Amino acid sequence: MAALKNIRKLKSIQLNRLSAEQAKAASSKPVVMVLDNIRSALNVGSVFRTADAFRVDAIYLCGITAQPPHREILKTALGATETVRWKYFRDVTDAIEDLRSRGFHIAVIEQTNRSILLGSFTMREQVALVLGNEIEGVSESILPLCDTAIEIPQHGMKHSLNVAVCAGIVLWEIFR
Amino acid sequence: MAALKNIRKLKSIQLNRLSAEQAKAASSKPVVMVLDNIRSALNVGSVFRTADAFRVDAIYLCGITAQPPHREILKTALGATETVRWKYFRDVTDAIEDLRSRGFHIAVIEQTNRSILLGSFTMREQVALVLGNEIEGVSESILPLCDTAIEIPQHGMKHSLNVAVCAGIVLWEIFR
Repeated sequence: MAALKNIRKLKSIQLNRLSAEQAKAASSKPVVMVLDNIRSALNVGSVFRTADAFRVDAIYLCGITAQPPHREILKTALGATETVRWKYFRDVTDAIEDLRSRGFHIAVIEQTNRSILLGSFTMREQVALVLGNEIEGVSESILPLCDTAIEIPQHGMKHSLNVAVCAGIVLWEIFR
Repeated sequence: MAALKNIRKLKSIQLNRLSAEQAKAASSKPVVMVLDNIRSALNVGSVFRTADAFRVDAIYLCGITAQPPHREILKTALGATETVRWKYFRDVTDAIEDLRSRGFHIAVIEQTNRSILLGSFTMREQVALVLGNEIEGVSESILPLCDTAIEIPQHGMKHSLNVAVCAGIVLWEIFR
C-alpha cells in the first residue's frame, strides 16, 4: 500500500527559481570546476547545467574544451551559460596556478595510486575540482600539482562514468 | 605547495574491473531504476553506464523509453547493456506493480508537495527509483502509487538537472 496521498508535482513558479540576474548576484559556493580537454561539447553543457543547480562559482575551460557560445553546449546547458561564470585557459597548468595563487585546494577526480575515495574527502574553504578527457582522463603533467586525488568507488565491468555524471556526483557529495 | 608526490594514473588492468560474465554473475544491489518515458536514448545509455558502475539490479524501461539494441543507447552505454539486466513495460504502472508485488519500496525522483530532500532518504532493503521524462517529469498518474518522493535540493536559476546526472547523484547517495 502506497503512502503518498494528495501528492502533486510542483509548478515552475513554486520552485523558487532565481532569475538570471538574481543567480549572478547571489552568493555562489567557493567551488570552481576545471574541465581539462573535454572532447564532447554536450558534456560541457551538461556540466554548466549542473553547476547552475549547485551554484558553483565558475567553470574553467581548458585546452580543447569547447566554449560558449557553441551549439552543442547550449543544447545541454539549457541557459546555464548565462548564470555560471567561465574562463578559458589554453594550458590547464595556468588554470591550476591561477587557482592555487588564490588559495584554492586543488582536487583532481582520477583513479590514481594516491586517490582517496569520494566519501572520505573533507570539504575545504575553497575547492577546485579537476575533471579530464573522456578517454585519457586528466593531463598526467598536472597530477603532481594537485593537493588531493579523488576516486568515485565503482563496482561494475566498466569502471568508468560519464564525465558530466561524475561532476554531478562529486558536486552533490561536496554540497549535501 | 602541492601534496601529491609520485602520483600516477592507474592502468585499466589495475582497476579490478569485472568481465561481462563476472559482472552478470556477481551479486548486484537490490535497486531497480525505472525510466518512465525518457525521450533521449543518449540519456538511457548513460543511465545504463552508471547502473553498471554501481551494480544496480535492473533497469525497467517504460513507455516511449528506447530499448537496446539502439544506436544512441550503445553510444553512451559503452557496453553496459551487456552487464545490466533490463525489461520493457509499455505502461509504467505495470512496472510499479511488478516491483511492489516483489516487496520493493517505490521512490520517485520528482519535485512535489510531498517530496523529502535526497539527503534525508533512508535506504531500504529493496528500492525502486523512478525517473521521468526530461520535460514533463514522471507520469502524474503514478505519483499516488509511490511510497516516497525525493527531491535533489537545487539552488540555481534552472532548478533542473539532466536525468542521467540525476540518476548518478541518487545512486551515489544510496550506495555511498
